[in-house]
Amino acid sequence: MSYSTFGNIFRVTTFGESHGLGLGAVIDGCPAGLSLTKDDIQKMLNRRRPGQNKYTSPRNENDFVKILSGVFNDKTLGTPISMVIMNKDQMSKDYSNIANVFRPGHSDFGYEMKYGYRDYRGGGRSSGRETIGRVCGGAIAKKALEEIGVEFITYTNSINNIKCENIDYSYIEKSPINMPDKEASEKACQLIDEARLSQNSVGGSVKCIIKNVPYGLGDPVFGKADAILASACMSIGACKAIEIGNGINSTYNYGFDNNDGFIYENGDFRTTSNNCGGILGGITTGGDIELTAYFKPTPSVSLEQRTANALGENIDISIHGRHDPCIVSRANVVVEAMCAISLFDMLLKNMSSKMDNIKKLYK
Amino acid sequence: MSYSTFGNIFRVTTFGESHGLGLGAVIDGCPAGLSLTKDDIQKMLNRRRPGQNKYTSPRNENDFVKILSGVFNDKTLGTPISMVIMNKDQMSKDYSNIANVFRPGHSDFGYEMKYGYRDYRGGGRSSGRETIGRVCGGAIAKKALEEIGVEFITYTNSINNIKCENIDYSYIEKSPINMPDKEASEKACQLIDEARLSQNSVGGSVKCIIKNVPYGLGDPVFGKADAILASACMSIGACKAIEIGNGINSTYNYGFDNNDGFIYENGDFRTTSNNCGGILGGITTGGDIELTAYFKPTPSVSLEQRTANALGENIDISIHGRHDPCIVSRANVVVEAMCAISLFDMLLKNMSSKMDNIKKLYK
Amino acid sequence: MSYSTFGNIFRVTTFGESHGLGLGAVIDGCPAGLSLTKDDIQKMLNRRRPGQNKYTSPRNENDFVKILSGVFNDKTLGTPISMVIMNKDQMSKDYSNIANVFRPGHSDFGYEMKYGYRDYRGGGRSSGRETIGRVCGGAIAKKALEEIGVEFITYTNSINNIKCENIDYSYIEKSPINMPDKEASEKACQLIDEARLSQNSVGGSVKCIIKNVPYGLGDPVFGKADAILASACMSIGACKAIEIGNGINSTYNYGFDNNDGFIYENGDFRTTSNNCGGILGGITTGGDIELTAYFKPTPSVSLEQRTANALGENIDISIHGRHDPCIVSRANVVVEAMCAISLFDMLLKNMSSKMDNIKKLYK
Amino acid sequence: MSYSTFGNIFRVTTFGESHGLGLGAVIDGCPAGLSLTKDDIQKMLNRRRPGQNKYTSPRNENDFVKILSGVFNDKTLGTPISMVIMNKDQMSKDYSNIANVFRPGHSDFGYEMKYGYRDYRGGGRSSGRETIGRVCGGAIAKKALEEIGVEFITYTNSINNIKCENIDYSYIEKSPINMPDKEASEKACQLIDEARLSQNSVGGSVKCIIKNVPYGLGDPVFGKADAILASACMSIGACKAIEIGNGINSTYNYGFDNNDGFIYENGDFRTTSNNCGGILGGITTGGDIELTAYFKPTPSVSLEQRTANALGENIDISIHGRHDPCIVSRANVVVEAMCAISLFDMLLKNMSSKMDNIKKLYK
Repeated sequence: MSYSTFGNIFRVTTFGESHGLGLGAVIDGCPAGLSLTKDDIQKMLNRRRPGQNKYTSPRNENDFVKILSGVFNDKTLGTPISMVIMNKDQMSKDYSNIANVFRPGHSDFGYEMKYGYRDYRGGGRSSGRETIGRVCGGAIAKKALEEIGVEFITYTNSINNIKCENIDYSYIEKSPINMPDKEASEKACQLIDEARLSQNSVGGSVKCIIKNVPYGLGDPVFGKADAILASACMSIGACKAIEIGNGINSTYNYGFDNNDGFIYENGDFRTTSNNCGGILGGITTGGDIELTAYFKPTPSVSLEQRTANALGENIDISIHGRHDPCIVSRANVVVEAMCAISLFDMLLKNMSSKMDNIKKLYK
Repeated sequence: MSYSTFGNIFRVTTFGESHGLGLGAVIDGCPAGLSLTKDDIQKMLNRRRPGQNKYTSPRNENDFVKILSGVFNDKTLGTPISMVIMNKDQMSKDYSNIANVFRPGHSDFGYEMKYGYRDYRGGGRSSGRETIGRVCGGAIAKKALEEIGVEFITYTNSINNIKCENIDYSYIEKSPINMPDKEASEKACQLIDEARLSQNSVGGSVKCIIKNVPYGLGDPVFGKADAILASACMSIGACKAIEIGNGINSTYNYGFDNNDGFIYENGDFRTTSNNCGGILGGITTGGDIELTAYFKPTPSVSLEQRTANALGENIDISIHGRHDPCIVSRANVVVEAMCAISLFDMLLKNMSSKMDNIKKLYK
Repeated sequence: MSYSTFGNIFRVTTFGESHGLGLGAVIDGCPAGLSLTKDDIQKMLNRRRPGQNKYTSPRNENDFVKILSGVFNDKTLGTPISMVIMNKDQMSKDYSNIANVFRPGHSDFGYEMKYGYRDYRGGGRSSGRETIGRVCGGAIAKKALEEIGVEFITYTNSINNIKCENIDYSYIEKSPINMPDKEASEKACQLIDEARLSQNSVGGSVKCIIKNVPYGLGDPVFGKADAILASACMSIGACKAIEIGNGINSTYNYGFDNNDGFIYENGDFRTTSNNCGGILGGITTGGDIELTAYFKPTPSVSLEQRTANALGENIDISIHGRHDPCIVSRANVVVEAMCAISLFDMLLKNMSSKMDNIKKLYK
Repeated sequence: MSYSTFGNIFRVTTFGESHGLGLGAVIDGCPAGLSLTKDDIQKMLNRRRPGQNKYTSPRNENDFVKILSGVFNDKTLGTPISMVIMNKDQMSKDYSNIANVFRPGHSDFGYEMKYGYRDYRGGGRSSGRETIGRVCGGAIAKKALEEIGVEFITYTNSINNIKCENIDYSYIEKSPINMPDKEASEKACQLIDEARLSQNSVGGSVKCIIKNVPYGLGDPVFGKADAILASACMSIGACKAIEIGNGINSTYNYGFDNNDGFIYENGDFRTTSNNCGGILGGITTGGDIELTAYFKPTPSVSLEQRTANALGENIDISIHGRHDPCIVSRANVVVEAMCAISLFDMLLKNMSSKMDNIKKLYK
């Protein structure tokens, strides 16, 4: 998928710059009759809000969603659902010092070359605030998937070189950075805090596990479930690697050991292992989908850095502001949103996979 | 992107089952006036042919392409380019023993559940032969990109736990498995041979480096260059992980060290490092694009394995045949093809990014 | 194109129900660097406003547009342009009397069957207010086209059986119903007024002429310029027929007389006649594009009508309200908007039609 | 829709020039489990064959289809169905006399300007032979629709100014030009024969009636059933006007008379009249879909005509060859094919219109 729309049937179009009037999304192709209120969206939006502790930016982003269309009497109409979040105080700051600068690790240069013109305030369209629209769309997809029993478990799997080892899902919400391993979480919090104090930043990874996925989703070739999920999550700013199932580790295995065999038990089929992360040949097996997304350390650091500006001057800059020393924990909900959007779209696409389904609905 | 078509402007639709009458691709949206002959396609197709040494399948696939449309007097017409490769002897073998079996690590089960019906001969649409269409499309995209100076370097970066360390590009074609490190290549060849003799298989990774990429390609949100490349390569069978630039390693860095700064020199801008793999915020920087795709060991092994069949019986199977003990070296050209298709499509999409371009062409 | 998005590169997604919180559009793929202010949109929106005279609905729709994103310092950014028009007093009326009724000539029944649920207030998504989003998109496309010299002339060509005969473009804005023939306009106004007084409604046609169209736009097969324009205008509510050029009249001609020949004169080619309406084989000839769109009489009439309701009761209904006795004059700007959107998208798509263009922009 | 692909879920991509190696189509998104043989396609292809009587071209086009993929044991697999028809004797004729000429009423000029290069042999991609791929796709769509009871009646409704008046469907196959009115058919045959003898050509219209259409198909805005059908048929070469239902005649009606009311009878709803041609607000009503497509007289006439060539010379040309004096009767099957493709795609898209359907298939 491309540009600002994602999906084939359930299609999410996002819009908005960091410091424009507003941001949001239009969701087209959502089936009618899904129960949906503003709160369903707001609840998920709140999970990406910064300022909740010292491990994220101290900015106070109070993002309140309005649903402009597509919902009537708390049910979806089947028509486009437009959701808007107005930006506040978007004029408050002077950005003239970075208006011409190509910040290291940022897309400023790319935008300038591509468009010849850009909104430099807070990164414009490349800002993390762009993910607001994704979360709006994800909240709806997730709500619909939950109606057929699908569940999501999303957490911070690693911060820099600190990895979760003894996973305890019940700790996800207790950890200030959503890390389901108390010891790892505490170490990671300390590391983030040190990075913050030294005006630097750290990266890490997010794992999303999806349970109770119907089998048969995904398409044989370019629409493989892995490919769609990879595209969905790699499109999140700062994501530089994606693994499905065992991912890179599967290349260290021999085929015999890596293969997931099938078993028929209690009237249904399942795989006896899940090295493939719930997807074989691009099609879901019914096992848990497992995806890991890796985020580089956020490029906004206050340390002095050398770079060029649009005038062709090579300069030193210090970017001050309320940066996130680590965006991994805030990225959790965005990864979950993109996985939900991808999966729900696959599920809708799969409805027309066989004539039997057509006859069930039309005869 | 979805289903069997990839791309928005330069659009590649592939078709064909392993043992049907033929396979191929239709390329729509290729600009007119590109010099193109059958040999341009055939040359690239030959790179994916098995049977060239003992490290790949001993099958002798002589795939000869025919161009049915879209080319006249060795130039593209701007109309759909249809390319067909007829299958040979596709009736020759008895597949009844696996017709009902859900082979471990394969998509048999997924197809059966999705479609209620499948072509079990040689894996049908899920066969590696499906990549023939991709290579046809990639050959054209690459030819077009070369006309504006873009170059590709593609190689096997690792086999199981053996990694290239002292890279010598000139060795890529000398290595029977396209590994640009003599020592690593020899070790890896031995490993593959052992896997072959023990009826097992191994995986590894392919690296694709793209040079002289124009800056400004890719789009801000879902059309990020990273996302499109990830989707393109993850859609290749057996690919389970993708890294852009430093990928996972970038999460072990601090922001200050990971950031790529810009410098203005000799009348142009460039980054002083390339941790980002040529892409920042989804937009190309002009630096080399670097992508690594990881392939699990091929699931077709001859060792006896336990699995279920469509009748709900749990059975032991041994899949005999001329399997590839390792498909990584043959995947090189497929990764390159998908990167070329992705990049050329981005380049065409970028033409309409600013009014200045429109005025250049229409006034 | 389908669902709620129109276009391939310049893509217009509209949203909004008649009585929801708001309506609008998101325009993705608009080139950066186009001068654009709220007034450019508002000016065109005002042309579709009712209540300007007795020939349209007396409703006072004061629709004020806000641009939420995609524009900075009065120039487009290349990112999605989101435009919102808030609905006013959308709660003011009691619609319970028609909540279950399948109004004759309306889509109530279709929506109910399709979605199982609908917003019956003012027609919901099927309301004429849906065209607001189209006009927003059209205003931008038109602005961009004007920069390369394209011009639009749009007028009411017929009302019921009264046709323009002596065309005087300067009279378009003088006629209260945009009919460029004083005599026809006066007759038609009288007819509309009679329909209004007798609680009935009348239909008619809109002609859109586009001048200074570059040649070579449109694609050979499904993307023929005629097909795209037809789809664009037929998608406007109440449109039931489309003609390109001489349209149906061309079937009464012999081939020799109907053929448009070419002439080379003053350094350029042009056709010596324009029966084809500026499009041959789906590709623009450089001659004026001529399209006529026919609108049935609006189905909202106050006369008592027989129909069924959702409970399966056959009933008589009288739909009171401030209906338009004729929507043709208000449809003018919508037809123009859809033609502008279609043409600008074709123009952007055509940029990648030949390698020469690519080399002009990338070398 | 655009370029060479039509449809969103059931997607038809056609390829091929008149005198290239071959033509055909790839159908992606066809549900699995549909019974399909080569004969199903061939039967429909035979209906567009010329040379069956003196009212069409005496060319003997023996087009035999091969199915290369997507079908196994006479059932569709759910994977792309590739169909190829090889051209015969495509080298046989010398086209050098028209290689540089911009034939009147043809797209030669447009192609030359758009692509800078074209296949002038027999019109290349703009040839009527391009419709072969459409008919291949249409045959499959029609087969699938028939499984749920949908039926098509397609006929020549007018030739020049001779219109069917006393319709007798049983005469469609008896009439050499598929005109279901004996008297009109005989008059029209005479007219065509006169045109043929005077080296001229005539146009006319095709009517397609679709029966037993499920209600609820089509989408509210750009995906209106009318818009999709209009685009589908207007994209057929030489089509210059489209009417749905009463079309232009509906503009001569008053609203009260034109409105189709609903009635509940025998446990189901239906409209009591069908002025709307089975579509209200873009959504099917369950009534017969009625579409009329108007075709200009074919531009290939042998009479001497004045035009320009690519060298900028204004010349007289006579185009000799085995032209169709009238292509309307051959266009019947193409209109039917495009309507079937459009309708089946709408039907598949409609499957995900409500959550109830999703629960029916996934719970």
